[in-house]
Amino acid sequence: MKPLPLGSKIGILGDGQLGRMLSQAASRLGFKVVVYGPDAESPAASVSAVSKVARYTDETALDRFAAASDVITFEFENVPVASLDYLVSKGAKVTPNARALGITQDRILEKRFARSVGINTVDFYEINSLDDLGKAIAANGLPALLKTRREGYDGKGQVWIRAAEEAKVAFDSLNGRPAILEAKADFLREVSVIAARGYDGTVKTYPVGENHHVSGILSTTLAPAVVSDTLKIRAETIAKKVLEGLDYVGVLGVELFVLEGDELILNEIAPRVHNTGHWTQDGCLCDQFEQHIRAVAGWPLGDTTARFQVEMTNLLGPDVLAWEALSQEPDSRLYVYGKDDPRPGRKMGHINRLKAML
Amino acid sequence: MKPLPLGSKIGILGDGQLGRMLSQAASRLGFKVVVYGPDAESPAASVSAVSKVARYTDETALDRFAAASDVITFEFENVPVASLDYLVSKGAKVTPNARALGITQDRILEKRFARSVGINTVDFYEINSLDDLGKAIAANGLPALLKTRREGYDGKGQVWIRAAEEAKVAFDSLNGRPAILEAKADFLREVSVIAARGYDGTVKTYPVGENHHVSGILSTTLAPAVVSDTLKIRAETIAKKVLEGLDYVGVLGVELFVLEGDELILNEIAPRVHNTGHWTQDGCLCDQFEQHIRAVAGWPLGDTTARFQVEMTNLLGPDVLAWEALSQEPDSRLYVYGKDDPRPGRKMGHINRLKAML
Repeated sequence: MKPLPLGSKIGILGDGQLGRMLSQAASRLGFKVVVYGPDAESPAASVSAVSKVARYTDETALDRFAAASDVITFEFENVPVASLDYLVSKGAKVTPNARALGITQDRILEKRFARSVGINTVDFYEINSLDDLGKAIAANGLPALLKTRREGYDGKGQVWIRAAEEAKVAFDSLNGRPAILEAKADFLREVSVIAARGYDGTVKTYPVGENHHVSGILSTTLAPAVVSDTLKIRAETIAKKVLEGLDYVGVLGVELFVLEGDELILNEIAPRVHNTGHWTQDGCLCDQFEQHIRAVAGWPLGDTTARFQVEMTNLLGPDVLAWEALSQEPDSRLYVYGKDDPRPGRKMGHINRLKAML
Repeated sequence: MKPLPLGSKIGILGDGQLGRMLSQAASRLGFKVVVYGPDAESPAASVSAVSKVARYTDETALDRFAAASDVITFEFENVPVASLDYLVSKGAKVTPNARALGITQDRILEKRFARSVGINTVDFYEINSLDDLGKAIAANGLPALLKTRREGYDGKGQVWIRAAEEAKVAFDSLNGRPAILEAKADFLREVSVIAARGYDGTVKTYPVGENHHVSGILSTTLAPAVVSDTLKIRAETIAKKVLEGLDYVGVLGVELFVLEGDELILNEIAPRVHNTGHWTQDGCLCDQFEQHIRAVAGWPLGDTTARFQVEMTNLLGPDVLAWEALSQEPDSRLYVYGKDDPRPGRKMGHINRLKAML
């Protein structure tokens, strides 16, 4: 693809904080941004040239969005695949592609894909009935993790089963949604890698970050993490396999579990810029948001070298109310997403703290 | 003043690239931005939550702007002082103050103010008639620089007089506008200092930058410049005198001429964020735009330490058309302002090139 010229219009499906930071990066490169999402006063709409307020399935609104955008991307992985297909059918250029979105929306398709390209995962079982669950528990043993196949995030839609008696309650909590039972991973650390691929197949990978979750929600990322060269190369190889296997153009995040001997298994693929990549805003000259915009616009990918080691801490719910103290911390930068209601667990902002010059 | 809480509305008079970068910084801190300016698709409006499209003298629009903003600032020094006075009369909180704007809009008032607070300037003469000009030339000698008192920028509205015969043509070129004749400064270098002051009187100064102009327009700034400690202290002292003398809250830029022996004389005060401060976006953790927003919002001022030495180069007119090559330069970041017409001399963007880690 020829690089999109200055002034071209980048359409973004989704209007949250990821869209906000993508929009700001796109503006900095001289693009105009059209945000599509359900809320008029969303984090992304309030920093963008144009905003389309509509449901993701509104075909009339999607028609207008397609007409207003030179390329369309997304910041939200639960955009319906049918909406992407519809946009493509109307002649829109959409990236990442619908297949990549469809695979990563479904935990079973995602793990099957991973294995098909030679990436290890935990053992897993497709669960469509209580009977399936019983057989899976018998085969796998306990504890094991029961999750909905789709739409879970931040620890929602998942429950640990530690004893056979808990199976029925766990299964009922799914309310009939298709599910997956995952074996427990005996991991020592959780790391992630943010990587980008251009239309020409160029791949660039950011240094590995180490993540800490609290109650299933990302709390901090330290990057570049202190890891062995072996781990680094393995993580980069996995990211490359994912990008190439999905014929992906743009930035994605790959969450990995680190086992004994620095063996890596895939936890999850996020088909978008990712919370564990926010450290790049202050660690690198080209952050993940600019990188994604470069990729989808057909610009050459930017430098992923880390200049600083950064600890990113999410400001969840009322954490953000400490903005006065946070804004006075030395060696740090504060990012607030412009959301009104700091309800518990809601991602309201983050702070990047510089730990070391590299 | 109590710090404005997250979600407060920052009004910005002026809709150019400085407003754009101020708006992005304000959003990052969690403020909502209301831009006021003459153009609907301006650099600032396209990245801001709300935009008011009106002339600066439209009282009905100013009323609405005042009602929509918790604090109002400006990015354009030719906003009429009467408009600020009007906003204040309607109960708006406006900073920097109207007196500071009025003084810095007028080259004679500005130089008188500078001298009143102990800052050196070139010799200057008020010119209201050809007769004034003749007397001034006789007193000062030639060459000398004839400028309009108001509204010149980027070398517009000024002409060198090198011989007495040129006086009449030069005077006529003013079209009757009040003017100033300035003695030639035998300067070795041009430097500038960007500084901020809070409501509580706290002052923070960024490292001195060295500037190069081409045809009267800023071409590059290198900062921190290689300067003596004496020069550094003198520049900081001047910035502090200006900020305090104007009872200024916000960021301003002070352009200085460096004479033999690191003596400094004031060239110009810009009552706003300044082109020679764009290097701070990549040199410092808190750039001049965030700093200005912090100051006007009553937040504690941010860190002005330089982490990198940066060379900022303006992309004037067609320079920006080289974006493909510019976007591939290592150790650099590109900023494009979203303007459509790259006419010669127009500020279309800039690039910050990292020169050294500090």
